[in-house]
Amino acid sequence: MLSVIETAAKLLIKREGDTDFEGAPDDDVNDPSQQELYSSWALLILILLLIGALWTSYYLQVRKIQAIHETVVSIFSGMLIGLIIRTLPGHYIQDAVSFNYTYFFNMLLPPIILNCGYELHQANFFHNIGTILTFAFAGTFVSAVVLGCIVYIWAFLGLEGLKIPFVTALGFGATLSATDPVTILSIFNAYKVDPKLYTIIFGESILNDAVSIVMFETTQQFHGDSATFTDLFNGIGIFLVTFTISLLIGAIVGVMTALILKHSSIRQFQSLETCIILLFAYASYFFSNGCHMSGIVSLLFCGITLKHYAYFNMSRRTQIATKLIFQTLAQLSENFIFIYLGLSMFTEVKLVYKPTLIIVTALGICISRWAAVFPLSKLLNFIHKVRARALNRPVPEELPKEYQMMLFWAGLRGAVGVALAAGLEGEDSNALRATVLVVVVLTVIVFGGTTSRMLEILGIQTGVETEVDSDDELDVEIGRKGPLINANYGFPEGSSGQGGRRATLPRLSDGKARRSPDTSPKPSSNSLSPESTVFPHRSSIGDTSVEIEHPPSFSRTTSMEPSVSSNSGGSSSLISGALPSLLSRTAEDHVRWFQNFDEHVLKPVLLDAPAETSSQPPSRPGTP
Amino acid sequence: MLSVIETAAKLLIKREGDTDFEGAPDDDVNDPSQQELYSSWALLILILLLIGALWTSYYLQVRKIQAIHETVVSIFSGMLIGLIIRTLPGHYIQDAVSFNYTYFFNMLLPPIILNCGYELHQANFFHNIGTILTFAFAGTFVSAVVLGCIVYIWAFLGLEGLKIPFVTALGFGATLSATDPVTILSIFNAYKVDPKLYTIIFGESILNDAVSIVMFETTQQFHGDSATFTDLFNGIGIFLVTFTISLLIGAIVGVMTALILKHSSIRQFQSLETCIILLFAYASYFFSNGCHMSGIVSLLFCGITLKHYAYFNMSRRTQIATKLIFQTLAQLSENFIFIYLGLSMFTEVKLVYKPTLIIVTALGICISRWAAVFPLSKLLNFIHKVRARALNRPVPEELPKEYQMMLFWAGLRGAVGVALAAGLEGEDSNALRATVLVVVVLTVIVFGGTTSRMLEILGIQTGVETEVDSDDELDVEIGRKGPLINANYGFPEGSSGQGGRRATLPRLSDGKARRSPDTSPKPSSNSLSPESTVFPHRSSIGDTSVEIEHPPSFSRTTSMEPSVSSNSGGSSSLISGALPSLLSRTAEDHVRWFQNFDEHVLKPVLLDAPAETSSQPPSRPGTP
Repeated sequence: MLSVIETAAKLLIKREGDTDFEGAPDDDVNDPSQQELYSSWALLILILLLIGALWTSYYLQVRKIQAIHETVVSIFSGMLIGLIIRTLPGHYIQDAVSFNYTYFFNMLLPPIILNCGYELHQANFFHNIGTILTFAFAGTFVSAVVLGCIVYIWAFLGLEGLKIPFVTALGFGATLSATDPVTILSIFNAYKVDPKLYTIIFGESILNDAVSIVMFETTQQFHGDSATFTDLFNGIGIFLVTFTISLLIGAIVGVMTALILKHSSIRQFQSLETCIILLFAYASYFFSNGCHMSGIVSLLFCGITLKHYAYFNMSRRTQIATKLIFQTLAQLSENFIFIYLGLSMFTEVKLVYKPTLIIVTALGICISRWAAVFPLSKLLNFIHKVRARALNRPVPEELPKEYQMMLFWAGLRGAVGVALAAGLEGEDSNALRATVLVVVVLTVIVFGGTTSRMLEILGIQTGVETEVDSDDELDVEIGRKGPLINANYGFPEGSSGQGGRRATLPRLSDGKARRSPDTSPKPSSNSLSPESTVFPHRSSIGDTSVEIEHPPSFSRTTSMEPSVSSNSGGSSSLISGALPSLLSRTAEDHVRWFQNFDEHVLKPVLLDAPAETSSQPPSRPGTP
Repeated sequence: MLSVIETAAKLLIKREGDTDFEGAPDDDVNDPSQQELYSSWALLILILLLIGALWTSYYLQVRKIQAIHETVVSIFSGMLIGLIIRTLPGHYIQDAVSFNYTYFFNMLLPPIILNCGYELHQANFFHNIGTILTFAFAGTFVSAVVLGCIVYIWAFLGLEGLKIPFVTALGFGATLSATDPVTILSIFNAYKVDPKLYTIIFGESILNDAVSIVMFETTQQFHGDSATFTDLFNGIGIFLVTFTISLLIGAIVGVMTALILKHSSIRQFQSLETCIILLFAYASYFFSNGCHMSGIVSLLFCGITLKHYAYFNMSRRTQIATKLIFQTLAQLSENFIFIYLGLSMFTEVKLVYKPTLIIVTALGICISRWAAVFPLSKLLNFIHKVRARALNRPVPEELPKEYQMMLFWAGLRGAVGVALAAGLEGEDSNALRATVLVVVVLTVIVFGGTTSRMLEILGIQTGVETEVDSDDELDVEIGRKGPLINANYGFPEGSSGQGGRRATLPRLSDGKARRSPDTSPKPSSNSLSPESTVFPHRSSIGDTSVEIEHPPSFSRTTSMEPSVSSNSGGSSSLISGALPSLLSRTAEDHVRWFQNFDEHVLKPVLLDAPAETSSQPPSRPGTP
């Protein structure tokens, strides 16, 4: 898709030229068919690349080869094609496939973020919000500053005749502080890594994209003038405001959608409904960007709000449609981004590769990541211990050593950095862009390629059922209602007749085998009873949708007892991180407060059926 | 989406300028954020327009206002915004939203065509293939030539000082011979018009896009030299070859997909599966275009083949995902195209509006449509009568008067014409483009606005259940397996708990009420028995998938007895139209031959479970 855009862009330039100067009509004759032709081939190449990458990832999964990851494959296949294109005569295709951040930000990123928000396991996310925010804000800031200083000093030594003002160096640091959510998370999904670690890394890698974007744009505002400490605090101020407003924009759009669904009968026109929900989500992203806010944050929280409220006002068809559409678009975008990064390595003509700078930066990001992860982890553990003592409760360590190491290892940089780097200024900007691109690709290959091994080395708990990968969940939904039900309730021909069904069934039963048995309707209601003793208002659950949505999450919650018990610490670390004065109040207070507010104010207002309001475990941030 | 592309294109032009001339780095400083900002706003406007259009169409449907159609609303809202943008200072947004056919052909058209092919009711389509092809090929050709002559003569009179060579006039005629599938079909869907008429108009309007594209490109090959009769026959030859090859490309890709699904276990990785099927379909389109073939034809038949074979090898999740994704993308594209046409009326700066030419053309398309529809209808009726006499069977008229009138009325021109017109050459090309744009918008507003009234005036049978709008079908699938099953088999809380379900349920039961009762599993098998006397090999159906997919189509088949009985005529008209020598052989021969071939060769090879092979009524072109 991107390819055709670029292609078309080029062609448009050509056409502009013609029309501006009342160009020879003969050009117009050939243009249309030529443009058709060029863009068709460019698109075809892209599509074949995507098919290749997806097929390889299928092959890897079938062969249970988890060391090599599909993103790595995508990057390499991209590099290969890039090399071929580079050697080809003529710059046409080459121009057509060079990285352009406008398309990246407007077409490739949104589906990924939206899907993240939509598939997010809300309970875990809000359990660990404190830790996540600490790493996302403080961590990214530290990492950017450290890397900035390293590069600045390196340039200052003048071994390569680089002239990089400090602000530019900071911006450079910011671009390389955005970690990549895609690779690491899909590996974690494959391994079903301990949900707490998963959630922390997930949250950090999503949010620090936003952080680094805002930081980068802040640095861009002093064109080369030296930054003072006031500027620093301004920057932080700007950032906090931006973040809050973006969050609000997203949440408001999500709530609006829920209200519209509730108070209109649009859900009877289901295809309209699906389109409108899709459009609302995108609107939040572009509105936020248009207002110089962070579209990523808006879209993420729009997705969360949609899933938390609007989802339960949707028609069944739209619930399934939105899930499937978001997932598919996200997967295509993800694969495409990495192919694209690989391509750019060779097709970006104006890049200047400075080997030593690249090496220094590569070392620099390791140092900066180290400097960001470990001190903050120690801080969090300390606060956690203090709080634990204050509560006189024995709690496990918030972030054990192996988690810290994994957090460090999860610091591969993503395409957001490359996209940001396009905005770098100054005479050495091309060298910096090249460096960012190479370093990002390196980190993805090195860290991404070794993550699975690292998980084994650190002996981190894997094989834990997490709901974040929701294909299973959707299979359960469709499966329970479709092939599975037919198969269970005696339509064997139905399930044997349809090839696809036969394929789904074993997988479903696997899913159920892996999961705690409560996935099947009846046992799940049993599995609810212990919960409902904790939450009396949940005893009202007698609703199949509950049984569709929840068993996995309950089995999750039980499967993550440790993290549950440490959530108080998670939330507290937010509190202590953000407003230490409130250290006295316990996390449970906040949790219970929001919970009650959500249960007794928000849901009754936003949701359709009262029965519905008691049917969403994701809504409960803290389960003490 | 288009908006950002165009936007980005402009911005890219700017960036090109910078980079080509080693532009001042200061430009680079502002560019990124500026580009972000501009494209965000452009996109936001677009999205809001789409939301507006969709919401209006929702409102219209709720208020049961069927005179005004959503496409008309889209065009008007587009015109409104276009007017506002035109009055705004600065050309930025204005440039950003001017029509560009490259994006139209590469991004907007494919989803619509693919969805048409995928949702196509294959039985009806192949029942009436003869009539459809006659109108699509001969009809479009006649209409293009007639309109071409009219415009050529008008220009020849020189009242407006137009100099239009005959070939250009023919090309112009071709652009305005592509009828629009979107508006008329959605109106027909709303009214559940007699499936035979629906199918004929559907098939014609899809295929004549392809015809007029090929015709147009053929005319483009003589740059202004006068065309001879040889050229004419060359043109026809080129067209037939193109059409056949394109059809084969599409079919081959579809079959390939079916085989890959059958022989790989990719359906266990369902999200990969969905992406790959999507990508294969697009690949057929772009490959076909890249080879100077007709992508539309390829994609249409790729969609048909996918649905006919691959669909039954897919996992349940992918079956649902592809349907939902194609539908949603198609709907967004459709609405967007019309908004876009409206916008272009005012934002296309270089258009030259010549009132009298517009009037002449507007009259011309009516005359040409008339000249195409009525003689051919008479021909078809005549052949039909001859065949009927040959068979000594009493059959009703193939195309009664009111059908002919409706066919004439259904000749509103579509966006394909506008997209093609961009390729018009010559000094007066801007005048011609303007004319095409205005005429297209006019026809959509006038004919589209009056179709529903026309249906009443002509007293055409409406309220017939057709399966082509497959939301019902999908609801039936999801519904049957989901809320509906739960509701029927005693999970009332489930259905009452979830707002969306409550919305789905009545609709489903409506659907069932509207349909012949055989939609519910058990009766459907009864409804099969009469059929199975006709097709002994179908007696093997005992498979729920049959009961999901077929009852509607069977009820359709029964509901369209007249057309069934007249299909022999339909097919025969193909035979007599294409190869009169074969008039001796009866259509049933052909039908039965393909049917057997499909049943006993293709499906066993392509499909997964033998049980599957006997479970697709769409596969049977002619049911005597």
